[in-house]
Amino acid sequence: MREALAWAAAGRGRVYELFVTDDARHAELVRAAVDAGVPVSPVTDRAAAALSETVTPQGVVAVCSPVDVPLEVASRGARLVAVLHGVSDPGNAGTVVRVADAAGADAVLFAGDTVDPHNGKCVRASTGSVFHLPVARSRSADEVFAACRAAGLRLIAADGYAPEDLVTADLRGDLTRPTAWVFGSEAHGLPDEVVASLDASLKVPIYGGAESLNLATAAAVCLYASARAHRA
Amino acid sequence: MREALAWAAAGRGRVYELFVTDDARHAELVRAAVDAGVPVSPVTDRAAAALSETVTPQGVVAVCSPVDVPLEVASRGARLVAVLHGVSDPGNAGTVVRVADAAGADAVLFAGDTVDPHNGKCVRASTGSVFHLPVARSRSADEVFAACRAAGLRLIAADGYAPEDLVTADLRGDLTRPTAWVFGSEAHGLPDEVVASLDASLKVPIYGGAESLNLATAAAVCLYASARAHRA
Repeated sequence: MREALAWAAAGRGRVYELFVTDDARHAELVRAAVDAGVPVSPVTDRAAAALSETVTPQGVVAVCSPVDVPLEVASRGARLVAVLHGVSDPGNAGTVVRVADAAGADAVLFAGDTVDPHNGKCVRASTGSVFHLPVARSRSADEVFAACRAAGLRLIAADGYAPEDLVTADLRGDLTRPTAWVFGSEAHGLPDEVVASLDASLKVPIYGGAESLNLATAAAVCLYASARAHRA
Repeated sequence: MREALAWAAAGRGRVYELFVTDDARHAELVRAAVDAGVPVSPVTDRAAAALSETVTPQGVVAVCSPVDVPLEVASRGARLVAVLHGVSDPGNAGTVVRVADAAGADAVLFAGDTVDPHNGKCVRASTGSVFHLPVARSRSADEVFAACRAAGLRLIAADGYAPEDLVTADLRGDLTRPTAWVFGSEAHGLPDEVVASLDASLKVPIYGGAESLNLATAAAVCLYASARAHRA
């Protein structure tokens, strides 16, 4: 919630209204909203639960303008981007936004059948990160890939079946280049034709007996490898 | 389920019985169980749901001997270990077991008030990894830390408030040593006195605006950094 107010204060979007329950924990937040000229309305616990579409509401709901920006704006000048392709689970998508934010990525692009970044579960799983870094989306994955290429980003498919792993690629210096990592759904990964259409594909090395990593942990290893290579 | 049968076949535990619904997908598994001398009993969908304590059961339930081994057995000769301290969420704990397995860790130790590794949600979140690598537990965290030290492992607290980050430590060569990473709960992290009692504390660097990573993604970055340093 603080993230939304900071985002609006930076001129990146608008918070239209705040609904809060009668809870002393919200006092500071209400003050910040009032100071920012945001109308604040009291609501019952039940109304807060209905508004936030969750069973354990925090008792604060903000009505904001959309967070997404045009693809070109999100990718311009970027050195590290996460692209989600066909990620339908909002919790997974939001967690990747959080990881991308932590790793210092410049944007997260929601491509194809990926969940809406404004989905409540996605916003919550991002723990405020949807307000930190630019988020863009397009139903056309090709449009997303074209925007990345236009921004000079190398498109790498994160693919558990890739012949080469990211450590090998990193040792060769491949991760120092501006990169857009493309992640597929947890259940199905990336379609073969998508992998084939990108500039490279790399897997996270599996040193033990596990078959795979889940989406968020794989994204953490990939994005942090690039973040580190960019700073070396 | 295949993991449980492989684990029993390796003499590491026992599968006492298999309960399966009438579903063609299970044919191969039933054959493998019968070949291994495991009694197989048919059950209704409803019984399978009740036995598996989940709303979307897969229709197969195995009754196994406990997977945990003594602390000394799990830590002996280990070079990379994950210790969970006060991790009460079974999904988080199971996901860390999966990540540790993928990163080639030698064991996962459940310390203090951490959830039981046999918790159904933990087993499911591990996607079979509780059967891949040794798992041990003790209500006494000190006992767990002592076992790690006896095995020659350096105990590193994964602590978001640590002054130094793991990349800096890695560049100095610190991660090449046999290491036990100690992870606290997602909500509260590690207690100060635990951090103070360990050999070192390191944070995952946060390059962007996020306040923190979640437990599983932080564990992925830490364990993969060590795994890579051990293989360099």
